[in-house]
Amino acid sequence: MDKLDQFKLWSQELTHLRGISSILAWDQEVIMPPLGAEFRAQQRATLAGISHSKLVDPALSELLDELENEDLQELEQVNLRELRRQHEKALRVPETLVRELAEVSAIAYEHWVRARRDSDFSVFEPWLSRIIELKREEARCIALGGSSYETLMDEFEPSAKESQLEAVFSKVRPRLIELLQRIDGSPVRPKSLEGVYPVKEQDAFGRKILTSMGFDWNAGRLDTSPHPFCVGLTPNDVRITTRHTENDFSRALFGMIHEGGHGLYEQGLDEANYGFPVCDSTSLGMHESQSRLWENQIGRSRSFWEHWYPQLRKAFPGQLDHLSLDDFVLAINQVSPSLIRVEADEVTYGLHIIMRYEIEKKLISDEINAPDLPDVWDSKMEEYLGIRPSNAADGVLQDTHWSQGLIGYFPTYLLGNLYGAQLLNTASKEIPDLDSQTRSGNMSGLKEWLRVNVHTVGRALSASDLISKITGEDLSANYFLDYLDEKYSELYRL
Amino acid sequence: MDKLDQFKLWSQELTHLRGISSILAWDQEVIMPPLGAEFRAQQRATLAGISHSKLVDPALSELLDELENEDLQELEQVNLRELRRQHEKALRVPETLVRELAEVSAIAYEHWVRARRDSDFSVFEPWLSRIIELKREEARCIALGGSSYETLMDEFEPSAKESQLEAVFSKVRPRLIELLQRIDGSPVRPKSLEGVYPVKEQDAFGRKILTSMGFDWNAGRLDTSPHPFCVGLTPNDVRITTRHTENDFSRALFGMIHEGGHGLYEQGLDEANYGFPVCDSTSLGMHESQSRLWENQIGRSRSFWEHWYPQLRKAFPGQLDHLSLDDFVLAINQVSPSLIRVEADEVTYGLHIIMRYEIEKKLISDEINAPDLPDVWDSKMEEYLGIRPSNAADGVLQDTHWSQGLIGYFPTYLLGNLYGAQLLNTASKEIPDLDSQTRSGNMSGLKEWLRVNVHTVGRALSASDLISKITGEDLSANYFLDYLDEKYSELYRL
Repeated sequence: MDKLDQFKLWSQELTHLRGISSILAWDQEVIMPPLGAEFRAQQRATLAGISHSKLVDPALSELLDELENEDLQELEQVNLRELRRQHEKALRVPETLVRELAEVSAIAYEHWVRARRDSDFSVFEPWLSRIIELKREEARCIALGGSSYETLMDEFEPSAKESQLEAVFSKVRPRLIELLQRIDGSPVRPKSLEGVYPVKEQDAFGRKILTSMGFDWNAGRLDTSPHPFCVGLTPNDVRITTRHTENDFSRALFGMIHEGGHGLYEQGLDEANYGFPVCDSTSLGMHESQSRLWENQIGRSRSFWEHWYPQLRKAFPGQLDHLSLDDFVLAINQVSPSLIRVEADEVTYGLHIIMRYEIEKKLISDEINAPDLPDVWDSKMEEYLGIRPSNAADGVLQDTHWSQGLIGYFPTYLLGNLYGAQLLNTASKEIPDLDSQTRSGNMSGLKEWLRVNVHTVGRALSASDLISKITGEDLSANYFLDYLDEKYSELYRL
Repeated sequence: MDKLDQFKLWSQELTHLRGISSILAWDQEVIMPPLGAEFRAQQRATLAGISHSKLVDPALSELLDELENEDLQELEQVNLRELRRQHEKALRVPETLVRELAEVSAIAYEHWVRARRDSDFSVFEPWLSRIIELKREEARCIALGGSSYETLMDEFEPSAKESQLEAVFSKVRPRLIELLQRIDGSPVRPKSLEGVYPVKEQDAFGRKILTSMGFDWNAGRLDTSPHPFCVGLTPNDVRITTRHTENDFSRALFGMIHEGGHGLYEQGLDEANYGFPVCDSTSLGMHESQSRLWENQIGRSRSFWEHWYPQLRKAFPGQLDHLSLDDFVLAINQVSPSLIRVEADEVTYGLHIIMRYEIEKKLISDEINAPDLPDVWDSKMEEYLGIRPSNAADGVLQDTHWSQGLIGYFPTYLLGNLYGAQLLNTASKEIPDLDSQTRSGNMSGLKEWLRVNVHTVGRALSASDLISKITGEDLSANYFLDYLDEKYSELYRL
């Protein structure tokens, strides 16, 4: 076997192991009977160990070195570069640290669940402290050149620079606060969507919309799970989940559109290159741009509901008779500061993210420590959103991320909004009748545009290079902020 | 780490890889979207390759040798013996042969599907020829000492002797043929069960019966799939499937009881030893004894339906009014020679198996070859069952086993009937009120008896040692034959 074939085999094995591990995770969330958990954890640990050994194998180092001298095609170079990146990062973290992080995270997660249930931060605090120490150490080991936080962020948003993030986020924060205050002063009051929405009809309606978005049911599934998510096992097997609330169809529906946006990215990856690093989403931020763009910019737009609202009313007879189309569009875009990130609207969501980002950075740079968190959290909430949690469960304990060692992950949520708005701005220029397509329920133009420009590219370009290439300029907060300004000025008559 | 701990780790990794591979298989049958097949095959091949490397690793040879000199406890000795058995068998088959068998089986399976669809044996014949050659070679490589067929059978029924099988099967064949002829001469005519049985109610009723059998829903699931099966991912995650026919509840119901019997075995394995060879069913024949015993000897008995028939009538109002309890019990035990094994009744089933067993043996010992099969098949059908297939799809092409290289598998189905009847005979003596328990819908006595005597023992004893230990005598065909004689003499007034 020549060197390149060996490399391909190695890469494919790692890819398949990752796909398998995703099946185990999906199954655990959606299907597995309760008593299955203990042995499933052992199965997953076994698989993780095998993958890790394959990734840090000295024979891979040799192979990668030898390939440096070969005459490779462009895509092969991308694959080589990416596998080397993963290989070297994995090599820099000692196995003892990897194991300790896995063990401590598992215990910390259990304590976080209990702490949140009892709204008692002290139960979680010592474990969070340990997680933060270990993550600081991990960042020191990997040491990509920038700050420790930038190093950790690289896992989720490869090649992202803290300075760039800082520049956009510091622009977003005051604009969102200001917009929120203007909305707060508006006399406009959205009506309630509460009603009786049978789960079966919610499911059927959601599937209709996913179909119109171009979600391929031959290469994907929709199921229910306690925490909605999307996972691409392969580009031909992409699974999304939702959960239904009887008295409010909108949670499940916008959740489905959101996960559907993620799902289109996974289904759109270039399957001809499956098995290689290039056939992977380029970053979590870019992934989130796909979900947010569909969920908010398309799915909560008046144009979209011009087509779908009559059908929604038919699906749930009598439930929405009191809402005109305009009432409805206002109701699904209601802005109101709230304590919980995952329930936040489009305007306040960014503030939830920015405060987490600011707190994480300080944690990793030793400026604050776990015991400081409740106070820091509550103060930021008050400063940015004007409300203060009355208990830790609705405050600092609400997210699972830190308990699992996911630090540097939060900013990708807001990056998603920014990328999404910037992309859609370009898409609107390149598809001149996009709005009239949307108004007639035809989403194929946008889906194809995203497929060609974003999905099939995969990891051939980093998120920031991709956004420059597609839109002709670097990441900018303006598109998102202008979109919000325009939309909410109209809705709330500002 | 000491040698024993190393051994445990090795064994656990192999167990977890097997469990994972079962998840992939279950998912593919039950859940996976259609386009997922290609990459799933690659994932499964990757996993199989990793498992195989771990099993034939020279370091494992060394470890096993070193452990021979250690002072081990009884269960540790069982585990050592079993892993050595697997290790040595795997070592004897060259990797080229393993790979060729996997590749040829995959292609042969595709050709078998087409051949059966078009009822054209010639499409499958060359691939079956190749499979048989490869299996003959595999048997020569493994060479356990007995015949080639015995060597192949060892994969499914470890330690089984062809001479023992020959002794019991040659006794069963004439007795079944004779019983069938007597039934054929009976004036008794069972009534039809056809009706309208909504799938939802079939499902609910089946779940009730599975619950009464002691199937643990916290450690298992029931789903639907085109081909019903049971798979134990771990003793705490056991999955069974069924398929429903609207106009006949009995297919799904007896299928569920059958798979439930398999499921109880898997759930009853000693989970404290999960990760080691001892925590595994001892043979496919013993596994089938559990399903057949529940499906036929319990599930089709008059005693069982004394309790359940009124509830069945209530579940499907108006559908069974014309059948008394006796009519019903006769209807679910109707005997009638038919072409298809999986649709065969309890009396003719054994003849379907014996003819396959006889044909397989001749194939492996070079007495006949693939081109001879259609004629040999049709003649045996006529000789044993008095009917002749009018096409290959309903004849030699009906089973998938040979296309997948499963040779030596069929006899385990009949062994299951024999083991089951012999076990239930002993159980009836040791649980004196078993029949009245059954008549009152209480199956816990039998379930516990099987758990203690069969399930928790796992692989500590071979199937033939286990049957001797429990029943006090070697495998005998008498219990099965006497059970059939008594039951059908009464039902058909012979």
